[in-house]
Amino acid sequence: MASLDTRILSAGTALPGPPVDNATLARRFGMDALWEQWVDAFIGTRTRHLAVDVETGKVNFSLADLAEQAGRTALERAGLTGADIDLVVMGTSTPDQLMPATVNVVADRLGIDDVPSYQLQSGCSGAVQALDVARQLLLTGRHRTALVLGGDVVARFYDLDAPLASLPPAQLVNFVLFGDGAGAAVLTTDDAADAVRLRAVHTRLVGRGREPGAVLEWFGPVDRDSDRAPAAEDYKAIERYVPGMAAEVLDALLDELGWARDQVDHLLPPQLSGRMTERIVRALGLPGATEISCVDATGNNGNGLSFFQLEQALARLGPGERALGIAIESSKWIKSGFALERD
Amino acid sequence: MASLDTRILSAGTALPGPPVDNATLARRFGMDALWEQWVDAFIGTRTRHLAVDVETGKVNFSLADLAEQAGRTALERAGLTGADIDLVVMGTSTPDQLMPATVNVVADRLGIDDVPSYQLQSGCSGAVQALDVARQLLLTGRHRTALVLGGDVVARFYDLDAPLASLPPAQLVNFVLFGDGAGAAVLTTDDAADAVRLRAVHTRLVGRGREPGAVLEWFGPVDRDSDRAPAAEDYKAIERYVPGMAAEVLDALLDELGWARDQVDHLLPPQLSGRMTERIVRALGLPGATEISCVDATGNNGNGLSFFQLEQALARLGPGERALGIAIESSKWIKSGFALERD
Repeated sequence: MASLDTRILSAGTALPGPPVDNATLARRFGMDALWEQWVDAFIGTRTRHLAVDVETGKVNFSLADLAEQAGRTALERAGLTGADIDLVVMGTSTPDQLMPATVNVVADRLGIDDVPSYQLQSGCSGAVQALDVARQLLLTGRHRTALVLGGDVVARFYDLDAPLASLPPAQLVNFVLFGDGAGAAVLTTDDAADAVRLRAVHTRLVGRGREPGAVLEWFGPVDRDSDRAPAAEDYKAIERYVPGMAAEVLDALLDELGWARDQVDHLLPPQLSGRMTERIVRALGLPGATEISCVDATGNNGNGLSFFQLEQALARLGPGERALGIAIESSKWIKSGFALERD
Repeated sequence: MASLDTRILSAGTALPGPPVDNATLARRFGMDALWEQWVDAFIGTRTRHLAVDVETGKVNFSLADLAEQAGRTALERAGLTGADIDLVVMGTSTPDQLMPATVNVVADRLGIDDVPSYQLQSGCSGAVQALDVARQLLLTGRHRTALVLGGDVVARFYDLDAPLASLPPAQLVNFVLFGDGAGAAVLTTDDAADAVRLRAVHTRLVGRGREPGAVLEWFGPVDRDSDRAPAAEDYKAIERYVPGMAAEVLDALLDELGWARDQVDHLLPPQLSGRMTERIVRALGLPGATEISCVDATGNNGNGLSFFQLEQALARLGPGERALGIAIESSKWIKSGFALERD
């Protein structure tokens, strides 16, 4: 039996409405110009896209809406329809409902039926985890063509009435860091001309005994009134651990593939924020690789990010070129990455 | 290369505290003896185990607590420790938090580190989906020994102040149907004497365009006051579709394995409730198979159920004996099942 290989036929993404810039947020939340400069200088996220209208508070998009749109784009670009898909895997930290899983709602809308479907509950490594599960399931030979989805909608945590001026920085930063969006990719074991191969995927839970760097709660009808912090980040821990974890993923992928550092043409680095990404890219030390990032414009849309980078990478990778993508989850601590190569 | 096969080395389960019988529920919620008889006659669930103390309202167990306990039992029975595990897959509809995924908290407590970990957002088919993902990932040869986990804790939906007497039957029934619990199994591709082989797993999203038969909502800090129904079931649809879906899973597994109906020694049927299980077993028509059920005593603990049945099956399967397990998810509609055979 010839060894199977997975190819990425296409990617697609979806953002909810126009970019919301820092000046708009400053105006909406009554913050001053100094704050706006602070966001530019220390966070480095210029815009984000939000499912909630910051003026009216109306939520215009669900995660299923965005994932459907991204999935439809990816299918069209692959020249396929839902009937060609025999496996669906999705990653998100913010499903529309606990049941049904959002992946099944999206599959239904895309005309995908009578196939296995899986939804991962995941953070910033979720897109890579979904690619990993899909790739491995394809490699068993039991499936041929997978639709992989990922995204997040943070509207239920985006409190437009929050008194930003009086919030501690650790909570305030959430309003500028995060955004909404979804992405999709079509993977296949079929032959395809000039295809981009998904050569390897690496994902590891690490940091045993280390406290979560990010926590996101949900509430049921019984504990609605709980005063648990709905979202908390430990940025000191994130700044401390993420660059080193990213370097470990890079080394693991290079080792597995036998690639040298100067053979990487494109780097898709972790996308927590614009500034954090800059620091990580510098620390990784791949001067020959062009950087493919999106977070300064999209905001951190969690399980969607890697697909936005992947979409760009598919457009840019020339024949024989190689790319490495890295995503780090700080809640618990997961290091993940993937490798692309065009035939 | 010899074809890989997956064996189930052990299973373990965990329930939160003693059984809560229908008389206790009747007393707690001020229902009369007639109601108690109605539960016995039409639901057929005699007891359930709850993470919440029905007298005090105190929540004594998280999902991580129960999954850790079940996982520890399964590891001990397999003669392994966390250090022997190189893959973790968990299914649940009620994770303790959106981030970190509960699987990672459990892995951490069990001394499992530096391995891939995945958590499926799933309903009543979740245990089978988790077994499926673990089995397929093992079959790629990239992993050797997996800990598979599943469970649910419905405490956030179990409103001890609910006016049961005035609730419509569709909401009332939730208080008697559901329970809390978790299970675990250890799967390996290593050789093992007298092992039970996991011969096949089948899972399919079906019913395109059909409305969900069960919905479970979550609330964030922004939409806590929403009046969306937190949990809703369409029992008419469940009664209508589940028996036929179960029959289709049975046929698919028999077909795949080339087994005749009279070669099935044990049947692990769907476990929505005692009465529903009776009807499904009758409709499946496997008179030669002994039934392995648990729901009348455990209540419907969702992603845990299949592990409770599996634990019994491992104890009962004699040499050369075969068992089929079936689980149906009604939200969206997923049909799933698995096949066991002892060497």
